[in-house]
Amino acid sequence: MIIVMQAGASRADLDHVVSRVEGLGLRPHVIVGTERTVVAVVGDERNAAAGGMESLPGVASVLPILAPYKVASREVQPEPTIVRSGPLVVGGGRIGVIAGPCSVESREQIVATARAVKEAGATGLRGGAFKPRTSPYSFQGMKEKGLELLAEAREATGLAVVTEVVAPEDVPLVARYADVLQVGARNMQNYRLLEAVGRTQVPVLLKRGPAATVEELLLAAEYILDAGNRQVMLCERGIRTFESHTRFTLPLATVPWLHQRTHLPVVVDPSHGTGHANLVESMAAASVAAGADGLIVEVHPDPKAATSDAAQTIDLPAFTRMMDVCRRVAAALGRDIG
Amino acid sequence: MIIVMQAGASRADLDHVVSRVEGLGLRPHVIVGTERTVVAVVGDERNAAAGGMESLPGVASVLPILAPYKVASREVQPEPTIVRSGPLVVGGGRIGVIAGPCSVESREQIVATARAVKEAGATGLRGGAFKPRTSPYSFQGMKEKGLELLAEAREATGLAVVTEVVAPEDVPLVARYADVLQVGARNMQNYRLLEAVGRTQVPVLLKRGPAATVEELLLAAEYILDAGNRQVMLCERGIRTFESHTRFTLPLATVPWLHQRTHLPVVVDPSHGTGHANLVESMAAASVAAGADGLIVEVHPDPKAATSDAAQTIDLPAFTRMMDVCRRVAAALGRDIG
Amino acid sequence: MIIVMQAGASRADLDHVVSRVEGLGLRPHVIVGTERTVVAVVGDERNAAAGGMESLPGVASVLPILAPYKVASREVQPEPTIVRSGPLVVGGGRIGVIAGPCSVESREQIVATARAVKEAGATGLRGGAFKPRTSPYSFQGMKEKGLELLAEAREATGLAVVTEVVAPEDVPLVARYADVLQVGARNMQNYRLLEAVGRTQVPVLLKRGPAATVEELLLAAEYILDAGNRQVMLCERGIRTFESHTRFTLPLATVPWLHQRTHLPVVVDPSHGTGHANLVESMAAASVAAGADGLIVEVHPDPKAATSDAAQTIDLPAFTRMMDVCRRVAAALGRDIG
Amino acid sequence: MIIVMQAGASRADLDHVVSRVEGLGLRPHVIVGTERTVVAVVGDERNAAAGGMESLPGVASVLPILAPYKVASREVQPEPTIVRSGPLVVGGGRIGVIAGPCSVESREQIVATARAVKEAGATGLRGGAFKPRTSPYSFQGMKEKGLELLAEAREATGLAVVTEVVAPEDVPLVARYADVLQVGARNMQNYRLLEAVGRTQVPVLLKRGPAATVEELLLAAEYILDAGNRQVMLCERGIRTFESHTRFTLPLATVPWLHQRTHLPVVVDPSHGTGHANLVESMAAASVAAGADGLIVEVHPDPKAATSDAAQTIDLPAFTRMMDVCRRVAAALGRDIG
Repeated sequence: MIIVMQAGASRADLDHVVSRVEGLGLRPHVIVGTERTVVAVVGDERNAAAGGMESLPGVASVLPILAPYKVASREVQPEPTIVRSGPLVVGGGRIGVIAGPCSVESREQIVATARAVKEAGATGLRGGAFKPRTSPYSFQGMKEKGLELLAEAREATGLAVVTEVVAPEDVPLVARYADVLQVGARNMQNYRLLEAVGRTQVPVLLKRGPAATVEELLLAAEYILDAGNRQVMLCERGIRTFESHTRFTLPLATVPWLHQRTHLPVVVDPSHGTGHANLVESMAAASVAAGADGLIVEVHPDPKAATSDAAQTIDLPAFTRMMDVCRRVAAALGRDIG
Repeated sequence: MIIVMQAGASRADLDHVVSRVEGLGLRPHVIVGTERTVVAVVGDERNAAAGGMESLPGVASVLPILAPYKVASREVQPEPTIVRSGPLVVGGGRIGVIAGPCSVESREQIVATARAVKEAGATGLRGGAFKPRTSPYSFQGMKEKGLELLAEAREATGLAVVTEVVAPEDVPLVARYADVLQVGARNMQNYRLLEAVGRTQVPVLLKRGPAATVEELLLAAEYILDAGNRQVMLCERGIRTFESHTRFTLPLATVPWLHQRTHLPVVVDPSHGTGHANLVESMAAASVAAGADGLIVEVHPDPKAATSDAAQTIDLPAFTRMMDVCRRVAAALGRDIG
Repeated sequence: MIIVMQAGASRADLDHVVSRVEGLGLRPHVIVGTERTVVAVVGDERNAAAGGMESLPGVASVLPILAPYKVASREVQPEPTIVRSGPLVVGGGRIGVIAGPCSVESREQIVATARAVKEAGATGLRGGAFKPRTSPYSFQGMKEKGLELLAEAREATGLAVVTEVVAPEDVPLVARYADVLQVGARNMQNYRLLEAVGRTQVPVLLKRGPAATVEELLLAAEYILDAGNRQVMLCERGIRTFESHTRFTLPLATVPWLHQRTHLPVVVDPSHGTGHANLVESMAAASVAAGADGLIVEVHPDPKAATSDAAQTIDLPAFTRMMDVCRRVAAALGRDIG
Repeated sequence: MIIVMQAGASRADLDHVVSRVEGLGLRPHVIVGTERTVVAVVGDERNAAAGGMESLPGVASVLPILAPYKVASREVQPEPTIVRSGPLVVGGGRIGVIAGPCSVESREQIVATARAVKEAGATGLRGGAFKPRTSPYSFQGMKEKGLELLAEAREATGLAVVTEVVAPEDVPLVARYADVLQVGARNMQNYRLLEAVGRTQVPVLLKRGPAATVEELLLAAEYILDAGNRQVMLCERGIRTFESHTRFTLPLATVPWLHQRTHLPVVVDPSHGTGHANLVESMAAASVAAGADGLIVEVHPDPKAATSDAAQTIDLPAFTRMMDVCRRVAAALGRDIG
């Protein structure tokens, strides 16, 4: 932590800051500059109630030095985490592809989709049974019946089932059916839920909230890791910006940035990340080229009839084309997909 | 709903759209323009699975016409909702002021703060017992002990207690102690929690998520209203933008915009909205001038020792000054504060 | 400047950084922390080509300490700058109000508007003669003829004329007619234009670009100040964010933040800042309460017939009401308006 | 244009809207819905002063139907524009690569860089001679001397010279030396400059402003096209968002979105788009996979000694590696690079 003093700070102000730093069990180094005095603080600022520093008289600003996350950090674990569940492998050079409808709607729909996406190269099946919806008047999902249908589709295809859990009390139920527990973007900072999935040993797909910084995403992962579950995938699915021609803005530079700082694998969601079916293939290919360890894509046999997210859902031929393009890009870069 | 066809859409594309609109039980009006054909759809589009329209061949875009919220709408209830709990009155020309520390830390701290903010004119006491924190390594609150101390402070002062509830399973416990249940910004789209507070008859303070649109905020309120609880206050507490000199960007135009569309009262949080103690007074005064029905402000007897949010917390003399300024602005506009 | 080394940086990396800092004529202080080593650099980093530091091996990040602006800084000039032009006084407790149409359209329109806004308490008259328009197909302004009409309106009322200049080569012409040169938001970083208005002695109203940080705004002002013109007003007119219910998001916390850092007065534009006529009065009042030194507002005798910005333009009775509200808020805070 | 009436609009309000639409030479179609009445307007709304509609009594909102740009539209010209200048070909399946330093610093620097980037496969040479800088205290470029050195580098290598022009009055001078005129992000809405480069026949690289929507970018291109110059490349270089771990957020979905709407080729700048040298290669590869028609990259023989943009500049070996990766991705997708 670096404490920058105001230009007009008094000697007493500085002494006060120094004694307060010492009171926190940290060591202050005072450096008198040409225009400003700064206090460089040595020690683990994460354990210190450092927020109060900014309120001290004479303090202009406080700059943190240490990243606030620990277990997720590549400094702690240099080798990449590989998440595995049946045929789904995410990380370590293997690109996992999770495909399927936004919502489970019927046995026929989910089983047919599972067979088709498997045929095209997917290794995971997505499908929502518990749906968090912006409006209380929208379809809220088939709930446990949907989970049963997902399990049937797994039976039929062997694909790993990825499905969202929206509340801590649902975790035991969903974990009975799912191979991967998805924590949705709206729940990225639902700490009770993070702790609950962290107490299972089921792999977790943690989606970035649309206003979350990458550091907040890593701290949310830290809740899960800290609770004992090390099988965590991060998912970039787009952020809220002033752009309105896409549903969200998909910032792919997050992928290499995260790879430099964390050992956790990074999955990209080009469906939510764009909101439009006709942009999905290009952004899936771009994600692979950017280094993504996985893709999660909304696919439906008849998108225009989908009960949710229809506009961003691709049909089965489009998914096959997308996989073909991604496979070629992956091969060009020496990586395996599916 | 207006469906805009592509410039090159065929007659068959148009017929397909028309028949699909009819299939949803809605009435299509085809209008052939000089460059585009549009289909104006008559009927309640909120009940229709309209998302699929954008996937139809020949469709360029789909524009909604109706606001997606209903019960929160001023068209449904023209007169303003007034939220009341003991001395706290929010709405209908009365400005409620909720003040107190970010976290309850001790009996002495919370009771002393309660007495002082009451003296200065507050009618509600805020204080966190269950704290949702970005980092798992931060102080997570005193939990039920904190609730007991809040109740003691109410005993001593009569102030209405406003405190956050972070999970549906905690609602009965928190509702036993609290006069107002706060749903925090991170939980604005935690639908289970919204439903749970909606099933109580305790007033709710619903904070806007930092990436939530105002329509999403109204839809979140709709979950609570729809569950049966009509005592809902909306709270603007700032959004995530590119600005980094403030913790969030506080968009006060939300206040009059919401007043034109909803009967629910609007509270502003200038503490989170700015993140810096020295900006709070100005933005509290601006909020009152913009028409806010309430303020919620972080106040601590010794901000630099606060366990959380220290940088944005004002001390007791600063709160007294802030109240004085706000009272003068309110009086100038013919409104009552506190 | 603080240079933070990577956790795994070698001794050679550190030595390299140290020698490079010395090579720039600055003094390095090495501080070895528990997890990181940092190098605190003493000296004026603004003159150093410090960008290169981040490229050195072993460097994790570089944090600036000094604000990059100088002449605009309150540290250099503690007393506030007051901008004066005829009846228009902005700063030092006096709130100047500049009102008028987006575009000058006719003698009748501009003279009638000038008389009416003066009557209501305005001290400046705005009106565009050279209009920068997003689309080449939009009305581009009356050009010199518009300037002549503005001068006639000044003749008739005594109001100070505020009008935009869009290119360096137009500065002499516009400066012959205008009392205040407006640099528009799209031109905030048009450095040739900043230098050109900086070489005049005509007061300048510098509007914040919709993606500009407050530091970039101050640096743009620095171009004008540095060229010799000290009569500069900053203007907050809203930023681009994800919010679409308003044209821009108006972040009023900018006002007190700027007052703490610069001596330049701050004007707010609630017309562009909201984009909707029915939000202007509330945000004008909020601006005054936030401490604004001036307001600039779009007013037209018949907004629906305005050639540009019609949706955000208020009519004359609305302006009179707005002034009444603002006058009451200003009086409550011990300040004068108009 | 669709005019949505308020729920409580009167018959007189509706008649007023209808007669006003007719007064603009457009045809109104009134559609009475279950909750709202809308007026669908037929005719070219781009020529109409439609803004005033929102000010009419009883009007809730106004939705445009037609895209505001014309000449840039793929509807007007379905086949892609290919920009050519010597060896540089951008569009039509060929990916042009423009590489070089942020600023021209010396003959040795620019000629050595030109030789090296050509060797690695670049077909264009970038280098700033006139530098728009955020701070007046930063290096402002070598001006005409810089242009001469760029011409020497072209002499030595045959590469097409791409350099920025910052003011209309400089266009003749810069056009004497440059093969492509770059309009920088800060000048995207400097309309005088757009008109000036539009009057030349020199190809233009138009960079997106960091707060500009894609429609505003297309309208800026429209100024150039409308002035007679059809050789225009659009450049995505990142937008301002809340993300601070990258200098800007690079939204690659812009690339396929633009391809669907305009015939103009799209170039991506991964240097400004990320701000960090170690993210450039990944994002260059992602850009190619997303369908970019070109890349513009900052390359310097010794980035840490660069006078500007050092942190985002890659060195020559890194550029060679980047080209190798991009070439493999392009080949996998059946496209040529360089």
